[in-house]
Amino acid sequence: MGEFDLIERFFKRPAFRADVGIGDDCAVWSPRSGHQLAFSADMLVEGRHFLPTVNPRHLGHKSLAVNLSDLAACGATPQAFLLSLSLPRADEAWLDGFSQGLFQLSELHGCELIGGDTTQGPLNIAITIMGDTPRGQSILRSGAKAGDDLYVSGHLGDACLALEAFRGKVSLPQAVFDSARLRMECPTPRVALGQALRGIANAMADISDGLLGDLGHILKASQVGAEIDVSAVTPLMLTETLWSCPHDLALDCVLSGGDDYELVFCASPFACAQVQHAANYSGTPVTRIGRITDSQRLVLLGFDGLPMTKSFHSFDHFS
Amino acid sequence: MGEFDLIERFFKRPAFRADVGIGDDCAVWSPRSGHQLAFSADMLVEGRHFLPTVNPRHLGHKSLAVNLSDLAACGATPQAFLLSLSLPRADEAWLDGFSQGLFQLSELHGCELIGGDTTQGPLNIAITIMGDTPRGQSILRSGAKAGDDLYVSGHLGDACLALEAFRGKVSLPQAVFDSARLRMECPTPRVALGQALRGIANAMADISDGLLGDLGHILKASQVGAEIDVSAVTPLMLTETLWSCPHDLALDCVLSGGDDYELVFCASPFACAQVQHAANYSGTPVTRIGRITDSQRLVLLGFDGLPMTKSFHSFDHFS
Repeated sequence: MGEFDLIERFFKRPAFRADVGIGDDCAVWSPRSGHQLAFSADMLVEGRHFLPTVNPRHLGHKSLAVNLSDLAACGATPQAFLLSLSLPRADEAWLDGFSQGLFQLSELHGCELIGGDTTQGPLNIAITIMGDTPRGQSILRSGAKAGDDLYVSGHLGDACLALEAFRGKVSLPQAVFDSARLRMECPTPRVALGQALRGIANAMADISDGLLGDLGHILKASQVGAEIDVSAVTPLMLTETLWSCPHDLALDCVLSGGDDYELVFCASPFACAQVQHAANYSGTPVTRIGRITDSQRLVLLGFDGLPMTKSFHSFDHFS
Repeated sequence: MGEFDLIERFFKRPAFRADVGIGDDCAVWSPRSGHQLAFSADMLVEGRHFLPTVNPRHLGHKSLAVNLSDLAACGATPQAFLLSLSLPRADEAWLDGFSQGLFQLSELHGCELIGGDTTQGPLNIAITIMGDTPRGQSILRSGAKAGDDLYVSGHLGDACLALEAFRGKVSLPQAVFDSARLRMECPTPRVALGQALRGIANAMADISDGLLGDLGHILKASQVGAEIDVSAVTPLMLTETLWSCPHDLALDCVLSGGDDYELVFCASPFACAQVQHAANYSGTPVTRIGRITDSQRLVLLGFDGLPMTKSFHSFDHFS
């Protein structure tokens, strides 16, 4: 199977929104008037972002999910993406599973594959995604204000726990491992919640490298601090995984574990009903975990309400 | 040096056209009204697209040049790009050279780095580029008409000859090797010519996999054929490399050699003065090499004007 056959067979679909889709030197796209575009890119490398044993269907899903999550974090509506794929060989079963996982998620979000590249080399999946928002409505990291309530969506820490189990650092009952592994391999990008929070959230980021690290980006960009109530974040793991996890490890996973692809955001306390409405509207649970302060520091308040001294790390590819 | 320091030090520049550049979950961009967007993506893998010995400055240049070349092939004006980079380690000297080569070319074309990703892994450079054209003025592969004249820009075959020399298949005088190698490692994307051909060229593609292969894409998309005059294409190599190259190899390099990043395009014979004007305006030589036919076949006419029977191949990553 040659390069062009491979594209034709597994990746070419009729253009639906694009003026010109796959098959020319460039894709051609007419942006919606009155809208700004949001762009993000994520690269997934075998052994770094996923295990060689991963189900290719899950990998196709995750490759797009992590990019959709960046759009969600800006409140953008997904539109289109480009996929650059380096493959050791043209393995039809792998390509079949991968493309199915990819397209299932892309169709769910109306996000069209409009171009990309295919080459031979170590397995590497690079996606660039484009979404849009009505002009001026992108949610940035830089808008947090002292006094804002701090929230996270969904569940935190399960993906990290699955990785710890893979590494043999913790032993989990099979059913618990399976549900945690699904959180790691098939994250749910919070696209509908992100859009529903336009005009409500003052700042937002997605949690890819751990809550503390990604919240840290908001604090730095907004030049503010935050207090997190540990009593509010500990229960954020899936119930069954939380019960199977030692308390210290649970806190590590929730606060510093990567790969959750939930949203962390802040909003005025006066907007709490609107936040709840956005959560209901998008069918995504949202939990208030603390507040933004003017201290320029990130403080964890323990079960006793006092600041904790334990240090946590977020993920960095080169440290 | 951590991931964020690396980005800050080597890749973050103040946004000039972007509403939000590097440093948030997404870049935010306001498209120009009345314009369509053109997108392309190219992935470069060590050992496949470049040799481990390549000068990192040249590699930075080439990584962007191959993407600019795709925009040129559509007649688009470069606007912005995203860079996803997988690196075995954070090598400061390499990053310094790579980023200098990249930014020198991006500044020349006013094409802004607005986002991307950085991770650890086998060396892989994935760029997605965005340009724009006034609405309806993109030049596609599908517009060739029987009777059109067929043209190529600049020089062909030198990059391929350099690769053959690297492989030890041909021996070249040092000065000749150096100039051919520069064509391979630092191709010149024909951006100004591409834009100047809007409204003139009926179809266009860039030559990355070889003239015959890339022209073949135009013929297939336009459902036409072509005749190429071998006497017109043979002189297209740089003069000094042509003299150092056996005749058969020269023809192979010119017709099937990849990595030239010139443009192949066709235009009505009535537009030949306009084509020449576009060439002069953009400072890019253009050579008429044949014509589009209604035969649906690609025929090479030898020095005697008769069809040749020798077969040529273009590059395919998986065959």
